[in-house]
Amino acid sequence: MIELYELAGSDAEVRFSPYVWRVRMALLHKGLAFNGLAWRFCEKTRLETACGGDRVPVIRDGDAWVKDSHDIAVYLDETYDGPRLFGGKGAAEQARLMEAFVTTTVLMPVFPMIAADVCACLDADSAAYFRKTREQVLGRTLEEARADRESRLDSFRAGLAPLRMTLKGRSYFSGDTPAWADYVVFGCFMWSRIVSPFELLDSDDVLHAWRERMLDAFGGHARSARLGYTNLPS
Amino acid sequence: MIELYELAGSDAEVRFSPYVWRVRMALLHKGLAFNGLAWRFCEKTRLETACGGDRVPVIRDGDAWVKDSHDIAVYLDETYDGPRLFGGKGAAEQARLMEAFVTTTVLMPVFPMIAADVCACLDADSAAYFRKTREQVLGRTLEEARADRESRLDSFRAGLAPLRMTLKGRSYFSGDTPAWADYVVFGCFMWSRIVSPFELLDSDDVLHAWRERMLDAFGGHARSARLGYTNLPS
Repeated sequence: MIELYELAGSDAEVRFSPYVWRVRMALLHKGLAFNGLAWRFCEKTRLETACGGDRVPVIRDGDAWVKDSHDIAVYLDETYDGPRLFGGKGAAEQARLMEAFVTTTVLMPVFPMIAADVCACLDADSAAYFRKTREQVLGRTLEEARADRESRLDSFRAGLAPLRMTLKGRSYFSGDTPAWADYVVFGCFMWSRIVSPFELLDSDDVLHAWRERMLDAFGGHARSARLGYTNLPS
Repeated sequence: MIELYELAGSDAEVRFSPYVWRVRMALLHKGLAFNGLAWRFCEKTRLETACGGDRVPVIRDGDAWVKDSHDIAVYLDETYDGPRLFGGKGAAEQARLMEAFVTTTVLMPVFPMIAADVCACLDADSAAYFRKTREQVLGRTLEEARADRESRLDSFRAGLAPLRMTLKGRSYFSGDTPAWADYVVFGCFMWSRIVSPFELLDSDDVLHAWRERMLDAFGGHARSARLGYTNLPS
């Protein structure tokens, strides 16, 4: 069975990485059984020894180790039959531009809004590492970045216009059924869902309805994922 | 031979539509001979009669009429052998999200910067139509929108970050060779190039180097295209 190394919280069942969620959905899309293994920020050497990388997602499929969410999706499409993630050879290369747009439009603006919430889910060693490295990137504390997140919500939502445009007359970014483009975007929303009660989308946004469909996909797999913040003291 | 209906200026050889340029490059990509027919904004009924649409690009291939740049590219990939534009079935659907991002990130910010220059290339009837409809969209005159374009250039260039990200370690948005993703972006730059001397890119931008490669593609086809503004009184 394929092993998927996933970022985990102090509660090992809390799996929140946006990139890992892309792969999780991709494995379900291909109909492949997999075993998700908890990995933490403070375990970098454990992966380096195995596959030469120091971040997840990583999969082990028999003797094959594959890292990087995009490369894993390519590997799955090339190795296994079943519904295609990319819709054909060469299409994966063309998906790179879409992925970069999702990074700047969704992932990067969401990050400061939920970074403190990510940190609160982590074990102590990982939290210290995460705080140090991420506060360098943010140029302020995680809590400062969280404090004014409401004020950035309107501009974040406005930036999602191209996503709404794409859903005109379609149920998914990939057409009638979800595929890689959907999983790339959805991973960002699962990241937020798992760690934070903060609501990124208006309930009457077409993206909200799309996200509901994605939560229901594959027997409601994503909807039933363990949340990291319900365990926190209120 | 395939007939391609193209927006033309008062000089019939000036072909500036960003969407038509996508198709022009797509036809070259497929190695298909075509004949570009001049069409002007004031000739809407001419197209409506033929194909039920009122905008270009439109192609006629034997008895088949196809409109909309994306749908034309799909038609070409499905109908003809040769290098694929999308890299496989289903990939075209996944390209929609990328196209929407290019619309908001490149096409929409470029539009107010060059709209007055587009207008200056048009025949009198088309210019009157263009000015009326576009000034409604802009909420100000074409000339007002042009007057402060320098002040918007930095934010436009900053918004191109995901395009630069995608070119890291790659020559084209589609990988080692150009394909649909490249033509979608390149069409926007040809639109500007044909009508305006205004420079959208810094000469040391990786996107500038990419654009040079695209201008050189297919024997320098795009580079040799007739410019609309050299004929204007200085």
